[in-house]
Amino acid sequence: MLTIGERINGMFKDVGKAITSKDKNVIQDLAKKQVECGADVLDVNVGPAAADAVAAMRWLIESIQEVTDVPLALDSTKADVIEEGLKLAKKKAIINSTTAKKAKLDTLLPLAKKYDSGIIGLTMGESGIPRDRNERAEHAAVIISACMEAGIPIENLYLDPIILPVNVTQFQSLEVLEAIRDLKILSDPAPKTVLGLSNVSQGTDKRSLINRTFLVMAIANGLDAAIVDPMDNELMDAAITAELLLNKHIYCDSFLDAYRKK
Amino acid sequence: MLTIGERINGMFKDVGKAITSKDKNVIQDLAKKQVECGADVLDVNVGPAAADAVAAMRWLIESIQEVTDVPLALDSTKADVIEEGLKLAKKKAIINSTTAKKAKLDTLLPLAKKYDSGIIGLTMGESGIPRDRNERAEHAAVIISACMEAGIPIENLYLDPIILPVNVTQFQSLEVLEAIRDLKILSDPAPKTVLGLSNVSQGTDKRSLINRTFLVMAIANGLDAAIVDPMDNELMDAAITAELLLNKHIYCDSFLDAYRKK
Repeated sequence: MLTIGERINGMFKDVGKAITSKDKNVIQDLAKKQVECGADVLDVNVGPAAADAVAAMRWLIESIQEVTDVPLALDSTKADVIEEGLKLAKKKAIINSTTAKKAKLDTLLPLAKKYDSGIIGLTMGESGIPRDRNERAEHAAVIISACMEAGIPIENLYLDPIILPVNVTQFQSLEVLEAIRDLKILSDPAPKTVLGLSNVSQGTDKRSLINRTFLVMAIANGLDAAIVDPMDNELMDAAITAELLLNKHIYCDSFLDAYRKK
Repeated sequence: MLTIGERINGMFKDVGKAITSKDKNVIQDLAKKQVECGADVLDVNVGPAAADAVAAMRWLIESIQEVTDVPLALDSTKADVIEEGLKLAKKKAIINSTTAKKAKLDTLLPLAKKYDSGIIGLTMGESGIPRDRNERAEHAAVIISACMEAGIPIENLYLDPIILPVNVTQFQSLEVLEAIRDLKILSDPAPKTVLGLSNVSQGTDKRSLINRTFLVMAIANGLDAAIVDPMDNELMDAAITAELLLNKHIYCDSFLDAYRKK
């Protein structure tokens, strides 16, 4: 699984404060720790507080790239913020994210093409949040077609079937699990799949348990990538073990350490 | 998930000793604790030590049924030991287990029919352990046909695709996960599926982590029942949470306690 570390996001208090006070150490610490814990990619989101979001993205990326070279996921609703990230990223980045809405696709796919980046496609369209696995597949098909027309290799596409809080719409979890299987057969080569995991446990009392259990179920269904807190050790242990059981890493008694030191 | 508690098995030192010394308290304690922790069924296996296995099965069942009324899984390679259990069991029992071998089916299916019991069918045949999902389906088809011919309702059948230790044959875990899906579509109504879970982690350093991770993956694929240690709290938490995410229990903040007190 491609582990995308979620912690450098202005929505978290420590990060929001670091952005406004330009405290590089907080950001660099979070970057280093997430990579040490197994993150393959770092998500970067300036959050709602930054007065100048483009400048904040620039500062975050420059701070992060002083201490690590892992690829970045550029997480913003604004195309100019994403493009600033694409210009600065040393490694092939991931745009986080488009939807199946025409305006989004028309804006972001040209950027993905120009910078040869990955792109996350949320399976939602003009009508809002998908109601079941079929609506997820419909929106995914729109995104896949648009990528093909724009000349974006499908290997660069990460489809996100959108998990919702289990305490709000409980039946949607199964729809998402089945969607992970469905989306993989919509094209050949198959698109990748990704989840913004922590949404599943929003507002619940057992966040880490629900997160890691759902992640293991999603991995069993073929999930390729997840946006998670890699510093949640039990979550990473569960994900590594799930992939071991799918024969994706070779067994050794110290398989947990071996994976993290990969 | 039907939780079948594995602890009353003469292979465990405490149980083996209790059987030879006729120490009822050890057995009754294990029976009560497993049920408190969420076991729906108790597996009963006299183990290798008992001089008179039929008498040992009788003593175990009488001891257990003094303190709990949950159904029993009668776990033996010997038909006369199983039949002794079927005679004594107050609730509908489960025979553990037949295989696809003709001699086994010819002996055990008449007992399942006579006592209207459940029966576990290991998907292995004359040629030994199955090599992949296809061999599992072949053996399962033999067992299903034999049940139909013997007049046993398929709802009474629990097919076990046989999980092997991940440190020995690592690719088999995925074969078992896919077999769980495959076996469900072999007949309508569908047979149930079951796993003797702890085998997956035999000889590994991280038994509980590997057990619970594989169990969650199997539940994601539709597993109906598992033979486990219900006193492994993290395992039960994971299983309960997996079923919550499949919308099989209604969410409440205290869903873990609510399930165990069901």
